[in-house]
Amino acid sequence: MRRSRPFEYRSRSWSAASAASVFVRLDRSSSVPLYRQIYHQLREAILSGTLPEGARLPTERALARELGVNRTTVMNAYNELASEGLVEGHVGRGTLVRRSLRAMEEEEECEQEMPSWLLGLAAGESEVLGPDARVLSELMALAERGEMISFASAMPEPALLPAELFREIVQDALLSDRQSALGYCPVEGLQSLRQQVAMRMRQHGVPVEAGHILILSGSTQGLGLVGRFLLRPGDEVVVEVPTYIGAIQAFRALGARVIGIPLDGEGMRLDLLESVLARHRPRLIYTLPTFQNPTGVVMSPERRRRLLLLSRRYQVPVLEDDTYGELYFETPPPLPLKALDGGEQVIYLSTFSKVLAPGLRVAWLAGPEPMIERLSLHKQIFDLNTNALGQWLVAEVLRRGWLDSHLQRLSAAYRRKRDLMLQAIGRYWPREVRVNTPGGGFHLWCRLPAGVRARTLLREAASEGVALLNGEPFHVDGGGQQYIRLSYAFPQERQIEEGIRRLGTVLKRLLLRRGQEQARLSPSEHIPMV
Amino acid sequence: MRRSRPFEYRSRSWSAASAASVFVRLDRSSSVPLYRQIYHQLREAILSGTLPEGARLPTERALARELGVNRTTVMNAYNELASEGLVEGHVGRGTLVRRSLRAMEEEEECEQEMPSWLLGLAAGESEVLGPDARVLSELMALAERGEMISFASAMPEPALLPAELFREIVQDALLSDRQSALGYCPVEGLQSLRQQVAMRMRQHGVPVEAGHILILSGSTQGLGLVGRFLLRPGDEVVVEVPTYIGAIQAFRALGARVIGIPLDGEGMRLDLLESVLARHRPRLIYTLPTFQNPTGVVMSPERRRRLLLLSRRYQVPVLEDDTYGELYFETPPPLPLKALDGGEQVIYLSTFSKVLAPGLRVAWLAGPEPMIERLSLHKQIFDLNTNALGQWLVAEVLRRGWLDSHLQRLSAAYRRKRDLMLQAIGRYWPREVRVNTPGGGFHLWCRLPAGVRARTLLREAASEGVALLNGEPFHVDGGGQQYIRLSYAFPQERQIEEGIRRLGTVLKRLLLRRGQEQARLSPSEHIPMV
Repeated sequence: MRRSRPFEYRSRSWSAASAASVFVRLDRSSSVPLYRQIYHQLREAILSGTLPEGARLPTERALARELGVNRTTVMNAYNELASEGLVEGHVGRGTLVRRSLRAMEEEEECEQEMPSWLLGLAAGESEVLGPDARVLSELMALAERGEMISFASAMPEPALLPAELFREIVQDALLSDRQSALGYCPVEGLQSLRQQVAMRMRQHGVPVEAGHILILSGSTQGLGLVGRFLLRPGDEVVVEVPTYIGAIQAFRALGARVIGIPLDGEGMRLDLLESVLARHRPRLIYTLPTFQNPTGVVMSPERRRRLLLLSRRYQVPVLEDDTYGELYFETPPPLPLKALDGGEQVIYLSTFSKVLAPGLRVAWLAGPEPMIERLSLHKQIFDLNTNALGQWLVAEVLRRGWLDSHLQRLSAAYRRKRDLMLQAIGRYWPREVRVNTPGGGFHLWCRLPAGVRARTLLREAASEGVALLNGEPFHVDGGGQQYIRLSYAFPQERQIEEGIRRLGTVLKRLLLRRGQEQARLSPSEHIPMV
Repeated sequence: MRRSRPFEYRSRSWSAASAASVFVRLDRSSSVPLYRQIYHQLREAILSGTLPEGARLPTERALARELGVNRTTVMNAYNELASEGLVEGHVGRGTLVRRSLRAMEEEEECEQEMPSWLLGLAAGESEVLGPDARVLSELMALAERGEMISFASAMPEPALLPAELFREIVQDALLSDRQSALGYCPVEGLQSLRQQVAMRMRQHGVPVEAGHILILSGSTQGLGLVGRFLLRPGDEVVVEVPTYIGAIQAFRALGARVIGIPLDGEGMRLDLLESVLARHRPRLIYTLPTFQNPTGVVMSPERRRRLLLLSRRYQVPVLEDDTYGELYFETPPPLPLKALDGGEQVIYLSTFSKVLAPGLRVAWLAGPEPMIERLSLHKQIFDLNTNALGQWLVAEVLRRGWLDSHLQRLSAAYRRKRDLMLQAIGRYWPREVRVNTPGGGFHLWCRLPAGVRARTLLREAASEGVALLNGEPFHVDGGGQQYIRLSYAFPQERQIEEGIRRLGTVLKRLLLRRGQEQARLSPSEHIPMV
C-alpha cells in the first residue's frame, strides 16, 4: 500500500561502487567550483525526474570517495539542494530526494528512521560551509598528528608554552583563590584581569580603564561579537588582501560582503580604501596593522594617522586586530591605532593565545563603554562568561610582572627560528621564490615562481610530511594562488631545516615540471614584500 | 551658517534636574512594560515635533535616575527609537533626535564627537535587551559581593570546588602534557575528553561514541548552537513553565517564539504538549527532565517514553538539558531521555559546571554525528574551540576515576544543605509558604502566600542582605509573581539558617501588611509541588 516508503527506493539508489558518474561529471578545468558542479547536475537529475522522489543519494562520504573530492565539497552541494527543498533526511547513510506532501502523509504513522530536522537549517549555512570553512580545523588536526612537520599553524611551539609559570601559580594560590579561579565570573571578565589589561594598554599609550575592557573567550569571539553588533546580512566590511582567514570566515558567516583592499609594504593601500569608502558604505574596516597575518607587514605611523582620518571622515569604525603586536624581534612597532584614536573610532582586539597559551582561550577587546555594555549582553546570552581559570592565570602572570620576561624569551626564540627558516630557504630553495623578513609575528609569506601553484605545492608537500598553508583562503579577491604561508613558530628548531629542505625538493621538482619558461617572474606585478 | 550643529540644540535639551516628566509619565500599575511606556511617549514627542530634530535626550543613566527605573529599561526604550531611525548618536552623553539628511550633509565636514556606529544595530537586539536579560549577570554581581547571603545563584559553594584535585593534576602532569593542556585543540574537543565523556554516558545507558560528543564552552553555548542550527526568527520552541532563564534568553535572542507548557509533579504536561504539537509546528522541545530548574521536578519514566513518542510522531527533536542529573541525594533518577531514544530524536546537553567547577567552562552535547559535524563548523567560526586547560583537567579527573567519589561528597553536602534550609524554613517561615523537597539539584522552589508578590520580597530581602530570585523570569507565560527560587548550593551552611531567618522576618512583615485575608491560599490553582 505504502508505495513511497523509503526502503522501496533502495533499488533505485546508486550502488556505492558505480553510478555517480551517470549523474555527475566533474570538469576540473572549469572555473565553476566542484560543489556547484555537483549541485547543478544533481538538481537537473532531480527536476527532470531521472532521480525520482524518495530516491536515496549516496552518503557524503561515499560520493566524495567516488568523485575523488573532499567530503565538504559534497556536503556543500547537498546543503544547496536541501536549501531548495529538493532533498532531505540526511543521517550519514544518505540523503533522499524529497517526496511530495501526499507521499509524506501516507507515511505519517510509520516510524521514520531519519528525522528531517537533522539536516538543520540550510539557509545562511551555505556561507558558513564555504569551501575554505574547514581550513582552520584541518590545521589543528594536522598539528595533532605528530608525524607531520607543520608550518601551517599559528600556534606557539609547545616547549614555549609557560607551563612552569602556571604550575607555580596553581601551587601557590589555587586553594586560596578557589572562587576567583574556579567559580563563575562576571560576563565582562574577572575584574582583576580587566584592570591588569587596562594598565598594560596604558603602558602602550592607550588611555583605557577597566570599564573599556571586555574579556573574550578567544579573539574569534571578538570578531563574531563585533560583527553581530555592526553587521546586517548584506552589509559590507573592508579587509586587507590578504588577511586572517578566521576574520573572513566570521564576517561571511554573518552574511557580510567582504571587500578586499590590497596591502603594500606600508600596510593597507589607503588610496584604494578611500575610493571604496567614497563609493560604498561599509560598516567596518578590519585591519591587522602590526605584523599583519599573513604578510608580516607593519603599517607605517603616517598611514595609521591617515587611516584614522578616513575612518572619522566616512564614519566607519576600525577593528584593529593586534594579535602579534607584542611579538617583535628588533624594534618595537609603532603605537597601536587605538593609541592615536580620540577614543571612539577604533575597536581594539588582542589575545593571550600567542604570548601565553592558546589553551587558555583568553583574549580581550577594548572599546567605548556603551559598546562594551552592549557586547557583554550578547556575550552573556550565548557564552555566559569566559573560563575563570584561564583569566585568573593570566591576571596572576600580569600581576606578578612575569609577562615581560616571558615575552623576551619568546622574542629571542621566535627570532632565532625565523632566522633558521630564512637561512634554510637560502640554502635549499630555488632563488625564484620571494620571501619576506618579518620583524615580528609567526609567519613567512612567500611568493612562488610563476607557473607553480600553491595548491600543488601543498599537496605534494603533504605527501613529504610537511604542512603549510596556500594563499587562497587569505584572499577575498580570488587571488593567492602563488602564495604560501609558513609558520616558524610551531615547529621545533630541528624540524625547520628538515621541513624547508623537503619543500625545496618539491619546489625544484615542480619547477622542472613546469619548465624554465614558466618559472620566470612576471615583472609587472606589485606585491607586498617587506 | 550651520544651524543644525548639535551644540545649538543644547538649549532645547532637557536639563538633567527636571523636565523628563514633561515628556514621560510612567504608570506603574499598567501592564505595559516601563520601557514601552518610555518609548511610546518619547516617540510621540519626536513625531509631534515637541522634541525637535537634533534635540539632545538625557543620558540613559540620567533619565533612569530621574524616572526611578533601571538603566536597562531606558536603554531598551532608546534602542527601540533607534531601530525606527528616530534617534542616533548615543555615546553615554546622550542621544540626539535624528536630523534630516540635509542637516547631516551640512555638517559633513565637522568633526563628529559621537560616531553613530556606537549605537550598533538596533534590529534584533530589542529581544536580546529584554527586561530580564540582565538577570543572570546581576546574579553574578550579587554573588561577588561577599556581604550578601546569596540564595540566588546556581553556583557550587566555593569550598566544594575541587581545587585540591586540580592542583594535584597540574602538579603531576602539566609539564608533560603541555600541548594537550595549553595548546589549541580540535573544535569538537580534546579527543581524550570526548572518549571519557562517551564512556561515562554509556555507563548511564546512553549508547554513544566519542564521535557523538561535541565539547562546549559551557552549556549556554550549546543552547545557542542548537538554536542557530534549528531556528529561524519566528520559529517556535516549546519549553516548560517555569524553565531555565538562560534557555529562554537564548531562544528569544535568536528571534524564536517560546511556547510554555506547564509542569506537574511528573514533569511536562504531555496532554498540553500534544495539543500544541497538533496546532503549531515547533522546531524544538526543550526540557530539563531531571531535577528541573527551578522546580526540582523529575519527569517520570512513563512520561519520558511518551514524550519521545510524541517527538517522533510530530518529528520535533527534543533538547534534553541534564545539568543536574548526577546530583541526586537519595535514589538515582530515571535514565536520561537520550537513553530511551532510538538515537536521533534527542539532543543531550550537560555540563561539568555544577559537578566540578563553573570556572572551567566545559560542557558537552551528545547528538547524531551529522549534527555534531555541522554544529562544530559553527562553533569553529565563532569560538574556534573550548579552552584546552579546562578540558584537560576534566579528562584527567575522569581518567583517574575521581569523579564518582567527588560526586558522593557533593551529594552528601548538598543534601545536608537542602535539609538545613528546609528545617530553617519550618522554624522561621509562615506556614502558608509552600516549598518542594527536591531529590537532587541545587534549588528550592517556593510559592508565596496569596497577596505576597515575589518582587516585593526580593526587594525587601535585598535590603536585609539576602539575595534570591523571583519567579517571573522563569516563566514565559507572564506568571511567576508568587514564586521564588532559593539555591541551597552556594551559601555556606552557617549562612543558610541566618538567611532563612531574615527572609522569615520579611515574609511575616509582608503578610501583616497585606492583611490576613490576602494571605489565604487560593484553592483553585494547580501548581507543581513534589
